[in-house]
Amino acid sequence: MSTTVKRWVYLFGKDGKTGRDLLGGKGAGLAEMTRAGLPVPPGFTITTEACREYYTTFGRTLPDELWDQITDALRDVEERSGKRFGDIADPLLVSVRSGARDSMPGMMDTVLNLGLSEDSVEGLAAQTESNRFARDSHRRFIQMFGNVVLDVDNQLFENAISEMKRERGVESDADLDEEDLRTLTQTYKGLVEEHAGRVFPDEPMEQLRLAVEAVFDSWHTDRATAYRNAMKIPHDLGTAVSVVAMVFGNMGDDSGTGVAFTRDPSTGEKKLFGEFLANAQGEDIVSGARTPQSISDMERDYPEAYEQLREIAERLERHYHDVQDIEFTVERGKLFMLQTRTAKRSAQAAVTAAVNMVEEELITREDALLRISPTEVALLLTPQFEPGALQTAQDEGRLVARGLNASPGAATGQAIFTADKAKELAEAGEAVILVRSETNPDDVHGMIAAQGVLTARGGATSHAAVVARGLGKPCVAGCEALVVQSRAGRMRVRGKVVQEGEEISIDGTTGEVYLGSLPTISRTLDDQADLVTLLDWADDAKRLGVWANADYPRDAATALELGAEGVGLARTEHMFFEEERLPVVRRMILNAAPATALERAVRAAERARASADERKKTRLQEELAEARRQVESSEQVGAYHEALELLLEVQREDFRGLLEVMDGKPVVVRLIDPPLHEFLPSHEELTEKAAALQETSPDSEELAEVERELEVVESLTEQNPMLGLRGVRLSILYPDIVKMQVSALIGAACELKSAGKDPRPEIMVPLVGDSGELKVAMDEVMRAAAATQKRYGVEVEYRFGTMMELPRACLVAGEIAEDAEFFSFGTNDLTQTTYGFSRDDAEGKFLLEYVERGILPDNPFQTLDVHGVGRLMRMAVEEGRAQRPDLKLGICGEHGGDPASVEFCHNLGLDYVSASPYRIPIARLAAAQAALKEREQDE
Amino acid sequence: MSTTVKRWVYLFGKDGKTGRDLLGGKGAGLAEMTRAGLPVPPGFTITTEACREYYTTFGRTLPDELWDQITDALRDVEERSGKRFGDIADPLLVSVRSGARDSMPGMMDTVLNLGLSEDSVEGLAAQTESNRFARDSHRRFIQMFGNVVLDVDNQLFENAISEMKRERGVESDADLDEEDLRTLTQTYKGLVEEHAGRVFPDEPMEQLRLAVEAVFDSWHTDRATAYRNAMKIPHDLGTAVSVVAMVFGNMGDDSGTGVAFTRDPSTGEKKLFGEFLANAQGEDIVSGARTPQSISDMERDYPEAYEQLREIAERLERHYHDVQDIEFTVERGKLFMLQTRTAKRSAQAAVTAAVNMVEEELITREDALLRISPTEVALLLTPQFEPGALQTAQDEGRLVARGLNASPGAATGQAIFTADKAKELAEAGEAVILVRSETNPDDVHGMIAAQGVLTARGGATSHAAVVARGLGKPCVAGCEALVVQSRAGRMRVRGKVVQEGEEISIDGTTGEVYLGSLPTISRTLDDQADLVTLLDWADDAKRLGVWANADYPRDAATALELGAEGVGLARTEHMFFEEERLPVVRRMILNAAPATALERAVRAAERARASADERKKTRLQEELAEARRQVESSEQVGAYHEALELLLEVQREDFRGLLEVMDGKPVVVRLIDPPLHEFLPSHEELTEKAAALQETSPDSEELAEVERELEVVESLTEQNPMLGLRGVRLSILYPDIVKMQVSALIGAACELKSAGKDPRPEIMVPLVGDSGELKVAMDEVMRAAAATQKRYGVEVEYRFGTMMELPRACLVAGEIAEDAEFFSFGTNDLTQTTYGFSRDDAEGKFLLEYVERGILPDNPFQTLDVHGVGRLMRMAVEEGRAQRPDLKLGICGEHGGDPASVEFCHNLGLDYVSASPYRIPIARLAAAQAALKEREQDE
Repeated sequence: MSTTVKRWVYLFGKDGKTGRDLLGGKGAGLAEMTRAGLPVPPGFTITTEACREYYTTFGRTLPDELWDQITDALRDVEERSGKRFGDIADPLLVSVRSGARDSMPGMMDTVLNLGLSEDSVEGLAAQTESNRFARDSHRRFIQMFGNVVLDVDNQLFENAISEMKRERGVESDADLDEEDLRTLTQTYKGLVEEHAGRVFPDEPMEQLRLAVEAVFDSWHTDRATAYRNAMKIPHDLGTAVSVVAMVFGNMGDDSGTGVAFTRDPSTGEKKLFGEFLANAQGEDIVSGARTPQSISDMERDYPEAYEQLREIAERLERHYHDVQDIEFTVERGKLFMLQTRTAKRSAQAAVTAAVNMVEEELITREDALLRISPTEVALLLTPQFEPGALQTAQDEGRLVARGLNASPGAATGQAIFTADKAKELAEAGEAVILVRSETNPDDVHGMIAAQGVLTARGGATSHAAVVARGLGKPCVAGCEALVVQSRAGRMRVRGKVVQEGEEISIDGTTGEVYLGSLPTISRTLDDQADLVTLLDWADDAKRLGVWANADYPRDAATALELGAEGVGLARTEHMFFEEERLPVVRRMILNAAPATALERAVRAAERARASADERKKTRLQEELAEARRQVESSEQVGAYHEALELLLEVQREDFRGLLEVMDGKPVVVRLIDPPLHEFLPSHEELTEKAAALQETSPDSEELAEVERELEVVESLTEQNPMLGLRGVRLSILYPDIVKMQVSALIGAACELKSAGKDPRPEIMVPLVGDSGELKVAMDEVMRAAAATQKRYGVEVEYRFGTMMELPRACLVAGEIAEDAEFFSFGTNDLTQTTYGFSRDDAEGKFLLEYVERGILPDNPFQTLDVHGVGRLMRMAVEEGRAQRPDLKLGICGEHGGDPASVEFCHNLGLDYVSASPYRIPIARLAAAQAALKEREQDE
Repeated sequence: MSTTVKRWVYLFGKDGKTGRDLLGGKGAGLAEMTRAGLPVPPGFTITTEACREYYTTFGRTLPDELWDQITDALRDVEERSGKRFGDIADPLLVSVRSGARDSMPGMMDTVLNLGLSEDSVEGLAAQTESNRFARDSHRRFIQMFGNVVLDVDNQLFENAISEMKRERGVESDADLDEEDLRTLTQTYKGLVEEHAGRVFPDEPMEQLRLAVEAVFDSWHTDRATAYRNAMKIPHDLGTAVSVVAMVFGNMGDDSGTGVAFTRDPSTGEKKLFGEFLANAQGEDIVSGARTPQSISDMERDYPEAYEQLREIAERLERHYHDVQDIEFTVERGKLFMLQTRTAKRSAQAAVTAAVNMVEEELITREDALLRISPTEVALLLTPQFEPGALQTAQDEGRLVARGLNASPGAATGQAIFTADKAKELAEAGEAVILVRSETNPDDVHGMIAAQGVLTARGGATSHAAVVARGLGKPCVAGCEALVVQSRAGRMRVRGKVVQEGEEISIDGTTGEVYLGSLPTISRTLDDQADLVTLLDWADDAKRLGVWANADYPRDAATALELGAEGVGLARTEHMFFEEERLPVVRRMILNAAPATALERAVRAAERARASADERKKTRLQEELAEARRQVESSEQVGAYHEALELLLEVQREDFRGLLEVMDGKPVVVRLIDPPLHEFLPSHEELTEKAAALQETSPDSEELAEVERELEVVESLTEQNPMLGLRGVRLSILYPDIVKMQVSALIGAACELKSAGKDPRPEIMVPLVGDSGELKVAMDEVMRAAAATQKRYGVEVEYRFGTMMELPRACLVAGEIAEDAEFFSFGTNDLTQTTYGFSRDDAEGKFLLEYVERGILPDNPFQTLDVHGVGRLMRMAVEEGRAQRPDLKLGICGEHGGDPASVEFCHNLGLDYVSASPYRIPIARLAAAQAALKEREQDE
């Protein structure tokens, strides 16, 4: 049986091009820099494949074949460095570093100075002309090796050095002399013997073997495993090991060490940025014992080394086409590169650097677009807390709770517990945060007045969250640690009490809640020319349209500025919630019963006439009689139609505003969706009111009114309102509301067209599950639209379509497309019904735990569930288009602003995504990336 | 251009075999009887095709080609009858009858005596030797023709004859003499002229033409259209017209007329059953002016005619292979058959006749099985009101309301408004009906005690409905006309007041509510040998297994008697609701929080250890500290485990009972499903209790306890409980409950196996939407099952599977089948989520209206929505079986007892359907029919 020995060891830069998969990130970087002719100390990398075989076939030891390759490589390093490993007079020392494909905390880090022994330490002393340096290097090596490779608690070594300092009566490590350090190395070796159960290895080759095995072993520590789980990195990749000849930045004033970014990681400005420390080793920068100089000082003090570094930085950027984060050492005037990797940088820097690099012709526009994370873009447009102040607040323990990050942005102000008071104070010029257990329509005026909203209950589609996103206000929702005692004028949070009027700060981007005020930074697209440039490129690259969910003209205007090409969802009922309208809406609903009863009675009478069954006839005639009785109390019917008339007027103005802002662009108006009880006072509130009136004025008109309201609220109460009388079901049962809404929309369009504008209304029916429902709604819509056009004597074009937000709609999409000219996927509700999750209940109670425990990969309300929900969408797209080839397809759930979901929508072949205004830039970039990725795959 | 003239007219029995489609039901029957050699008056039929062309190409007149065919046919009739149409001396008279493929109320009925004119009436008088008879025939003809063909209001004719009687001072039509009648014909003709705007046609051929056109026109009346809509009959079939020579049963004492069934339509007994009236025409039987004799009297008085009729009846049954409903006339001793059709009969009769006919070798077993409607079978097994008493109650106006027919059967008793009182009275031997606004777990003991349950609110899956069906008690739910004032001890219904203790009666089969008591008839399978025979045949024919939904041993025993082959759904939590257990369950839930917090803290600690993020660590450590604090209040943890221990004991006994009854047959136990708050007192109740205690004993232990309960109830309150923390989500968050339930089930199985029995437990996880959830549950189940078997030292086999009741489960069925050994479709919830309907809210508020208005064809909770829900099921079946070829598939939603749904399940290839015990016979028969239909199609 013959086995071919594999190649497990690669010399830096000598062995052709190999990537991160085989050499790990660190090894690949060193190899590539070497190959590019940059000054890198000699060294080699043991591959990730060797690590894998270490587990699968080597039995967790290094076999001879591997060891032979390592010693061969070591020989090469010796030749290049002119030193020999284990040489007593002038020993080659090496560092041993782990490096997997992906950077991974939890694995073994680095061992420096490996190769030192009791004998060679003397040679090192002679070479560096410093006995103390050599002894200190040896002491550090034993501590590092003992801790990292032999797993001895680092605290034991720290205790020993503290003891030594106390004995010597000195404060600093630097005050220990050569002899102290020599004694300490012996103490350290004793600690290793005691706690690792073995003598400290003094033989360099054994040190190397143990270090390599320790790196391999560290692949499977609990921390590394947990990290891979969290980051979804496969467990079978393995790590590489790089062995690098040591260079010393602490060999005198012509030596030094530093870290640098090739561009400013905060702003993206093109200049070297970083720190340098003369006569020091890397760990001295990290320990903070000495204050490093900035790189710009280096230019002054070490002009040659600086110039060399600048030149290398340029070469690295040309090589890697990206901003680099580098580590370097200057040994006796000679520069060595120890590491290079793509730099982590702020969102701002990422955008600016990318745009600049396109201008410098380092990268293409496509590269730039693919390089920026869409969620970073979002951060550039929402107010943020000033980072320094944020850090201080955290250090001071003012971060008191976390809730759901329901609407992004940062806000600070007085904690106020009622909407009325919030409005009052805001009008007086105060900044307030409205804090409620949960919000309801009665609170909207307070939300509008507040800087931000904080609630103790409710998920990311709770009233507070939805309204706040619509308003573009920061919101932290469902912050369960809060107990809001609004009547007592205080809230409690983890044992602390906040009185009304005290300042708090909320971060809707992270869900954090702080005590006290925090300074915020706010930015718009106007300030950010580079971002505007990038987004223009994105528009050139993308295929998907990007529309906005906007209910008010002001939202539409914002959306337009942010690049929206249409309004994909205008929720008409949000307009109902406004303070001065709500009473009219309530009057309409409270009086709808008799009017609707008449409508039903007429239909019942028709059916009765056609029916042969005598018993049924009797029943239907009873219904008719009952309806007549109700109708005869005509005060209510009058009030109902009067309210509808008023609403028609205001809705027409609303729609006119929207259509005017979006002139020439489509505006999709959704017919009334939420259950009617959402517009009414709560049962509890009415009960209390009735009880109070019973005490004070038992015979009053007011009590009778409240009792009537209570009756209506009771009749509208539902066990599962999400699955109850809402959406198209309302349109079918209350056709007058549809008539009013369509008349308002088409009327507004007629007025604008007469004024020479180009209104493009689209009418969308929510919550359709069967083509039969859509047909009934379509009849109402067509009739009202035709009548309105006739009244104005103007013809306007409009589209008619439906939300696809129920599994059944997707399952019968072909039939629905017979009547619908467009589908707009309402993936919020579609996710709720496909999973059987009520978002309000699920997110707080179990969904977040599901994600944390890995039961689900993502929160399906944030990232579209491609596997389940996406499959239904695919069915609907295919069968809808088969029925109607020019069917327009969009999405208006919140997923329209989620990058991964936007990519899915692109691949699904949708025509547009519709997102809330502040997520438009995200969607534009994500759409461009999806198009570019597709193009790459096609090539 | 040459056109071939089609054949539009067929002579009875002369023109080969043609079916109902072309000749209509009536025409086909007459033709077939003629061909079979039975005595039928000569006649012919104008085809449905002529009717269709009348609308599509004839332009709503009769073209010459058609008219020629009619006159040719008429000639033939003249020859056969020896009389001439329009002959003055001895006129041939005919009846003109409509007859579509399906019997259809709302179309024109019959015109008798057509062909009479002012002249020929004299000839008729001569022939019948009765001037009065001839005049009366003429008068009747004008009235009938005037009303039916010329659309003159019948009331006008009735007024005229009343007027005439008043003038003559007589009471009865029969007292009018020849001359009166002659005058009346002239008055009638005047009425026709005035109201129809034309002279009454005296010319026989014109009468015929007008009558035929009127029949054709009547196809499109509103009533007929509405009927077709309701019955889902296509609108383009058209009706046929039969023209039949008149025979007269009123030509003296050797003449007569009658209707008969070939078997008793109530019992199925094989004997002629019906009525006979000597010297009379058909309409005299209908009018009730004279009391007819029973057919058995006819045997005595007209032995020859009777013998002829009996013989013909046998021939008809041999010909049609079914019970016939016949009309006949004896004209001067000669018997004529005027109509035959399949008899409508009672469920009892249908079964008995079918079984007898198999024994008589008239039909095959397959014919018998296909002939019986499964829903009829259900009626044979539920108590019913005695039909006569029911009719009386209706006539007396005691039918006061209708609700949902939530659980079949009839019950009568005192209306009682609290569960405690119901139980108390029942124990004292009184029959009571429990009447509640809606029921909750606190009411179950009262429901068990009551004869039946009536609620004002809630749909067909409301607590009342589900529990009543489980108990096999009649239930009318959601009877919105009721206002139950339980504290006042009364209820109101449509203006009437029923005091507690007054008797009422409810029919859960129809949803009707009656005032006063009504006698009931109850039956079991024991009394019904024919039904047992039929169901045995069904078992031989069916492929689907029929299992039962049964929660208690007593239900399982009933199911077994009714033919169940397994238990497909045992809802463990129903056992929790029993009176003595509920307090223990509540104790468990109220104390679950600290124990569960410990569990979570342990998991959090694990994650914290593995996590690198310091901030997160801090937070998780806080959680841990909080959990420890909670755990330290160990009284609660103790109470929790004590309650679980108690529940383990009682559940083990429950399961032991179930497994013992079903020995050797599978018993599928579903893990806990409903949200925990269902087991707790309501928020309202607790608030009231707390308020009361605040008054009386503000510092009491009891108040503290109530406030703690209130806190838990609040924390468990959900906006949409149907989509909240229930099903597998509970199993994941409260693993101790799963452990308890599995330990109880497997423990019971171990005990039985030790005792030599053959227990076959299956464990089913509800509400799974993702394979990740199922895996977590599976781990818990496997661990608990293994531990239990080890403890008993016994090995038992069990299956592990899942409900498929969410769209997403069906969409990822392949993955779920990796772990699930069986799927059981929970089509109640699957329908709710696929449509986005909460059944409790939808049925009352809009779903019934949807069905009534034809927006949906059926209530999808009663008949499975094949198109949407069924498509998801098909995906799940295909992809589940692809993953696991031996996957067992069943359904345990209520559709398992619906015949159409059972057929769909058969075609889908499921292994079994599981239905509530009383629907088992329905399912057995439906399963057999599905198998037989499939076999027919394959042939």
